[in-house]
Amino acid sequence: MSEPTLLVLDTDPSPRLGRLTGRARIRYTDEAGLAARLPSADVLLVWDFASDAVRAAWPGEGPRPAWVHMASAGVDRLLCPELTASGTVVTNARGIFERPIAEYVTGLVLAFAKDFPGTLELQRRRQWRHRESTQLAGSRAVVVGAGPVGREITRLLIALGVRVALVGRRARRTIHGAEDLDRLTALADWVICAAPLTESTRGMFDARFFGLMQPSARFINVGRGPMVVEDDLAEALRRRWIAGAALDVFEQEPLGPQSPLWDVPDLIVSPHMSGDTAGWRDRLSEQFVAMYELWAAGEPLPNVVDKQRGYVPVREPGE
Amino acid sequence: MSEPTLLVLDTDPSPRLGRLTGRARIRYTDEAGLAARLPSADVLLVWDFASDAVRAAWPGEGPRPAWVHMASAGVDRLLCPELTASGTVVTNARGIFERPIAEYVTGLVLAFAKDFPGTLELQRRRQWRHRESTQLAGSRAVVVGAGPVGREITRLLIALGVRVALVGRRARRTIHGAEDLDRLTALADWVICAAPLTESTRGMFDARFFGLMQPSARFINVGRGPMVVEDDLAEALRRRWIAGAALDVFEQEPLGPQSPLWDVPDLIVSPHMSGDTAGWRDRLSEQFVAMYELWAAGEPLPNVVDKQRGYVPVREPGE
Repeated sequence: MSEPTLLVLDTDPSPRLGRLTGRARIRYTDEAGLAARLPSADVLLVWDFASDAVRAAWPGEGPRPAWVHMASAGVDRLLCPELTASGTVVTNARGIFERPIAEYVTGLVLAFAKDFPGTLELQRRRQWRHRESTQLAGSRAVVVGAGPVGREITRLLIALGVRVALVGRRARRTIHGAEDLDRLTALADWVICAAPLTESTRGMFDARFFGLMQPSARFINVGRGPMVVEDDLAEALRRRWIAGAALDVFEQEPLGPQSPLWDVPDLIVSPHMSGDTAGWRDRLSEQFVAMYELWAAGEPLPNVVDKQRGYVPVREPGE
Repeated sequence: MSEPTLLVLDTDPSPRLGRLTGRARIRYTDEAGLAARLPSADVLLVWDFASDAVRAAWPGEGPRPAWVHMASAGVDRLLCPELTASGTVVTNARGIFERPIAEYVTGLVLAFAKDFPGTLELQRRRQWRHRESTQLAGSRAVVVGAGPVGREITRLLIALGVRVALVGRRARRTIHGAEDLDRLTALADWVICAAPLTESTRGMFDARFFGLMQPSARFINVGRGPMVVEDDLAEALRRRWIAGAALDVFEQEPLGPQSPLWDVPDLIVSPHMSGDTAGWRDRLSEQFVAMYELWAAGEPLPNVVDKQRGYVPVREPGE
């Protein structure tokens, strides 16, 4: 039996995939070569979460990969109607990014509570200026997105004494449904977006939403950029509707040097790095290799994306 | 029976002390007036942890307060041989600062792990530069000082998955003795000082100590400034013996604009604010009022300082 063909959309070969030698015919391609190679691939591994190339190159008819794996948590740039309608299985990298992102968000929350940006700015000016800070314990957070990332953020914040309301698409057990979001937002000190980008979450954080928040509250986005109407957020910060915000994701990435976002007051801009702790690419490769072994053995794959919903549904125990 | 005289070393009257109206004759004094008023005071409340005035004014002979309360965790600037030898009870503000300081330290650790200073600096330069960060879970910390502050720091870091070794003066149960410090330091990613300033801790963090640390490790001091040999720390950072440090306390406070510490590379300088969350002065006043009520009723006081050791000893359950 001939080896399956594994097509990797990445020009930078990952050494860890070498473990599949003899079990897969590994081919690398860049975006330009993708359309020509897709029909002969059994499996497609996509490294760049921000690439639209798969959507553009996906064959409407004829042979296509049986399985596409996205080495990220979000699959928003991957899905297109033809892929969604096809029998191709789509999986994601659940399990790799949750803890790093949750730590990153916890760090941002503490950085705001303790005013580290102010401290660093005063240090640059060689000024000793004592200020009172905020106690995190007892404060209230709303985490939007009840997937694995939102749940891990919730877990860490609760461990630090924060009262967290986790909001998903629909209410179940300890999770609030979307219908509770406005009411919870009005009470929150921290609003954290860790939701997938779908047609129902696109642009949901807009002027109306920021107007619901307390003037002392902060907004953090580690989901996907297009969930936030960036102009509205900038305006909310300039008018001091809210006290601060941190964006790790943006409508356009990388953010260009001309972007007005770099110097919006009380906004922390970081370069889509919240999930990327040292060794992350190795961990993604190891995860894919383990999943490939299951697939080659005919076993069911974990992390299968619900292509209609646009994310991997989390089942509560007993659901 | 006449009311006891409560002398407050503070020129800024605290509204909360009004609750003692009718139960104490409250007198305020500044440092200059302290020596003249001390002999007629039954109780002395000291607001400024950094003041040497009590030490200078303490009467060698004759009448003196039966009780001195220090509205801070550290009593290092208060104790003098005459006060230590006297029958005067000294208490501190245990219970107020632990959680805020532990949150502050946790925030600093995450700020280093996620390189927030680097992110803010790149934002100022409008540069998008993705970096890998450090996962906090699984990293190793040494917390020096097994009092309530060190224990609370330990608790929060453990909640975030850090492997913490807590080091006290002597080994007991889950606490390491000082003899283990060098060995533990050599393995640590984070070394955190939350010890009281005593003759045995003064200057303990010096070139020899920083030389034990890993080049990737960071040092944080939220105890008292004189435990750190500041020139040695600055040199260790300049030579990259260690990767970073944060000081919230200093040999001289406030730090003057001419101090060389402001621009030591990879050093975060903050103005002795780690414990001071909004409402801290109210909480200190409420604590003192509750303690005054116990004292006036002849009940034993909590938070009594062991004047020989220079801190409130923590007893383990069963000790």
